Amino acid sequence: MDNAQQPSGMPIHKYRPYHEQFSVSLPDRTWPDKHIAVAPRWCAVDLRDGNQALIDPMSPERKRVMFNLLVSMGYKEIEVGFPSASQTDFDFVRQLIEEDLIPDDVTIQVLTQAREHLIERTYESIVGAKQAIVHLYNSTSVLQREVVFRSDKQGIIDIALEGARLCRKFEERIPETKVFYEYSPESYTGTELEYAVDVCNQVIEVFEPSPDRKVIINLPATVEMATPNQYADSIEWMSRNLAHRENVILSLHPHNDRGTAIAAAELGYMAGADRIEGCLFGNGERTGNVDLVALGINLLTQGIDPQIDFSDIDQVKRTAEYCNQLPVHERSPWAGDLVFTAFSGSHQDAIKKGFESMDAAASAAGVSVDEIEWAVPYLPIDPKDLGRSYEAVIRVNSQSGKGGVAYLLKTDHAIDLPRKLQIEFSGVVQGKTDAEGGEVTSDQIWSIFRDEYLPADDADRRWGRFELVSTRTQSDLSGEVALDITLRDGDAQHAASGVGNGPVAAFLEILRTHGFDVTLYDYVEHTLSASGDAQAAAYVELQVDGERLWGVGIDGDIATASLKAIVSCVNRAIRTREQAGVLEAV
Amino acid sequence: MDNAQQPSGMPIHKYRPYHEQFSVSLPDRTWPDKHIAVAPRWCAVDLRDGNQALIDPMSPERKRVMFNLLVSMGYKEIEVGFPSASQTDFDFVRQLIEEDLIPDDVTIQVLTQAREHLIERTYESIVGAKQAIVHLYNSTSVLQREVVFRSDKQGIIDIALEGARLCRKFEERIPETKVFYEYSPESYTGTELEYAVDVCNQVIEVFEPSPDRKVIINLPATVEMATPNQYADSIEWMSRNLAHRENVILSLHPHNDRGTAIAAAELGYMAGADRIEGCLFGNGERTGNVDLVALGINLLTQGIDPQIDFSDIDQVKRTAEYCNQLPVHERSPWAGDLVFTAFSGSHQDAIKKGFESMDAAASAAGVSVDEIEWAVPYLPIDPKDLGRSYEAVIRVNSQSGKGGVAYLLKTDHAIDLPRKLQIEFSGVVQGKTDAEGGEVTSDQIWSIFRDEYLPADDADRRWGRFELVSTRTQSDLSGEVALDITLRDGDAQHAASGVGNGPVAAFLEILRTHGFDVTLYDYVEHTLSASGDAQAAAYVELQVDGERLWGVGIDGDIATASLKAIVSCVNRAIRTREQAGVLEAV
Repeated sequence: MDNAQQPSGMPIHKYRPYHEQFSVSLPDRTWPDKHIAVAPRWCAVDLRDGNQALIDPMSPERKRVMFNLLVSMGYKEIEVGFPSASQTDFDFVRQLIEEDLIPDDVTIQVLTQAREHLIERTYESIVGAKQAIVHLYNSTSVLQREVVFRSDKQGIIDIALEGARLCRKFEERIPETKVFYEYSPESYTGTELEYAVDVCNQVIEVFEPSPDRKVIINLPATVEMATPNQYADSIEWMSRNLAHRENVILSLHPHNDRGTAIAAAELGYMAGADRIEGCLFGNGERTGNVDLVALGINLLTQGIDPQIDFSDIDQVKRTAEYCNQLPVHERSPWAGDLVFTAFSGSHQDAIKKGFESMDAAASAAGVSVDEIEWAVPYLPIDPKDLGRSYEAVIRVNSQSGKGGVAYLLKTDHAIDLPRKLQIEFSGVVQGKTDAEGGEVTSDQIWSIFRDEYLPADDADRRWGRFELVSTRTQSDLSGEVALDITLRDGDAQHAASGVGNGPVAAFLEILRTHGFDVTLYDYVEHTLSASGDAQAAAYVELQVDGERLWGVGIDGDIATASLKAIVSCVNRAIRTREQAGVLEAV
Repeated sequence: MDNAQQPSGMPIHKYRPYHEQFSVSLPDRTWPDKHIAVAPRWCAVDLRDGNQALIDPMSPERKRVMFNLLVSMGYKEIEVGFPSASQTDFDFVRQLIEEDLIPDDVTIQVLTQAREHLIERTYESIVGAKQAIVHLYNSTSVLQREVVFRSDKQGIIDIALEGARLCRKFEERIPETKVFYEYSPESYTGTELEYAVDVCNQVIEVFEPSPDRKVIINLPATVEMATPNQYADSIEWMSRNLAHRENVILSLHPHNDRGTAIAAAELGYMAGADRIEGCLFGNGERTGNVDLVALGINLLTQGIDPQIDFSDIDQVKRTAEYCNQLPVHERSPWAGDLVFTAFSGSHQDAIKKGFESMDAAASAAGVSVDEIEWAVPYLPIDPKDLGRSYEAVIRVNSQSGKGGVAYLLKTDHAIDLPRKLQIEFSGVVQGKTDAEGGEVTSDQIWSIFRDEYLPADDADRRWGRFELVSTRTQSDLSGEVALDITLRDGDAQHAASGVGNGPVAAFLEILRTHGFDVTLYDYVEHTLSASGDAQAAAYVELQVDGERLWGVGIDGDIATASLKAIVSCVNRAIRTREQAGVLEAV
């Protein structure tokens, strides 16, 4: 069997291998024999590098939500903006400081180009902060020197040194703030190594590092241009050649153009770096910054404390999606909707046996299953440790080629379930089919779906404890909506009122004041296009008293459909609890 | 500045480092000094590993579309299914063979477990094929041996050898088919290396490899458990220790649990592998298989022919999204909607100077700009080489914190533009603001949007060459829809009819029969929830006579909105051409 591949005609003549442009010869490299043993220092740059790559940059409110998320997860160094380039960023930094929103052990970081008026403005932004990292950068790559700055090597060094000296000068204006320094030779991966280390070492001298005031040297893969081992070689070389290395914190800032940023960060860290800058779920310019979630949880799987709290990964994901207005992909490492799902029968069987084996081992040792080593095939981590659960998905009719549950609902009823609801509902179908046996028709699936999520058509056959009887919303366009509802609760009817940024938020507030501990995790809606009558379907994922589940609402009005979906979800939560209660009583 | 990070409380006691479980000591490794110089043999497993990880597995029709896509791109080895485990897969393999759909230089591959009735069924599936790869596997990992198979090492070897012998036996039943073999010690990354090579070498002996009939040994990272350099070390070790190495094709099959599958494939290939199995855009179990698109285009950026045609990446993406019913993420390497977009002013400026510099260099050399080396900051590849374009996005009002164009449309008009349309429209706004200067209000943005995409409210002020006057659709539920429309064309009205799997397809057919070369690239719809009157918006991206652009339709009926969107798009294409014509005539 010969290799039958043919030339593609792609224009290879336009591109030259990285190693022919930049030589990183390091035959005595040591990093491939190293193993990571402790977490690096993390710096989250979601509010700067991530934010600047959004179609809609974060509003001040979304910025505060992101900042609070990062703080709550345990990040201690947070790049909060580029205040000299953006009034929004400047105002946000001022707000953090003036409203005292920065915990004492968190250090904010601000980016600035090496130009006098920008540096001066940067120092104005951090007046009053307890401490701050001023992050100075200028481009050093061959290409940018030639094309953008039209300058020689010394000219670029002069820009960096002048910037560093100006930093030292303006630093004196804010003696009450402890200022630390970070310097980035931007576009480092396009820079000759000998020149990069020369620039860095001269800048380091200006910053006069000491054990109490180390200098951060950040080596960005502004554009990822080569395999990650070449980046690691370059980092090991730099680590050997940086001046005052003992007082330098060597930082990485990988971008993901080639899809290998996570590897570049890990190998670069093994090669001697101390610190990694990145964004949650790999947000950032083009293909993104390195994914801090993947890096952190990768450590956990090796028994290393990431020093970051990932115990409610869905909450982290939901918040990041809100702030970035970009989805996290279904297959995003450790966090995507599909990563703890097994579809294949042989995987499901092996996973089941793995759980049984762990239970048996824990019993034999007389300990809880959470005290023994995790060992389940196809699940490299216990989903519970991230606040998730393992989901086995049954394939209804997949053997006969008619498509799965979700496909049939979509084709025959225009119901387009969100991925995680598809998975939840497949478990519901599996429960019914296991009980009754045999194959399931599309009509049966629709019937199971209605029984599970939708109120009965029959007015005499009421579904669930609650039912929405009437709604009224009022808004004076201030951003707040007032909601008045009448709700059937068992056989009684009650009126209730709530306020929120929309009807959904207002309804959740009503439920909370009535003693339900509800948190919104996901919300999706669409028209039922196939039916042609402009009905809309809404899907909500709530956590109700600690349990995560979905609800569905269908209505001609999308706002009403959303409220119906919440009722559906709460009714299901109550039913689940009641059934559990019944079973316990038996 | 001390490191302020704190213990997270994550349950690290449940996990043990990979290198404490599996030792791969290779101090004399050679791969870190290697550079990739030619493309590996590719094997696309979208129809098997990718398909089995879908919520809705592909229908026979979607399978054919995927197969044709892979063939058209240049893949010569395609794993088409697991025929003994799935009647759908069996039927698909039969269809490919019986309808003669496999080009002579393409080899299909079928997966089978090492069990007699499954192997026999597998051979039944490939009767009549010119050639085929039978891919035999069994699990060899420590965990699966203990938990799933409850067998010792010899027992697992016996399963593999018995499977291989049965393959040789059933091979005699189909003498007209040239059968090649692939063996996978499944869950290889959880297997002791000495044991893995022992199993493989014994299987190799049964298959009796020769120069004419090499055996593929595939080493899957069924679960990605360690940094990619450890996988590469293991591959180099295996490559040194496999028997009959000269007649063995060493194949990689990385999964992406840790987010480093692309790196694992590249480093493993440098470590001596010959072949890589993966899926387009990294579809596959959990976090997916390695992404064949990223791997291929990574080669192109180094001046190496991937031997795969990526010249219309949007078409590849659209087809994969249709077949998988899963989106490709906005930041997916080389293919995501945002990867050729620059938001930051300094990036836009540098890119502009890069283009200018290339033009100047080409002029000076008296050649076309496509003949010289690509060198533009922040764009590691020429987007044109992938059928894309570079997009500079203006930030309207972002300085004042009021949000961007897309944000304002969404907030004030409930219009939720798809990412690529956001980018296109930002260019339209930029054109207007550059011409008129100053800041843009939300009302002005809405006015620009309507002028560009929507017909005028005023009946006297007609917008564009075409207008939809009436529509009628009929369906007998056979999967085909008949569409009858009346269309205003200039001042005349015409009736026209078309057929398709939906109204959109039928309308595109009508346009084609009227001489427009139209291809659908994207379709998105949603309700205008904020307006409360259940209007729906539809967005289509079409290629019209070679130009890619968007159209928008709004209507109470979603089907009508879709058709209006197509009219909007075609009218815009005509207007663009006319304006260009006018300019040429001036």
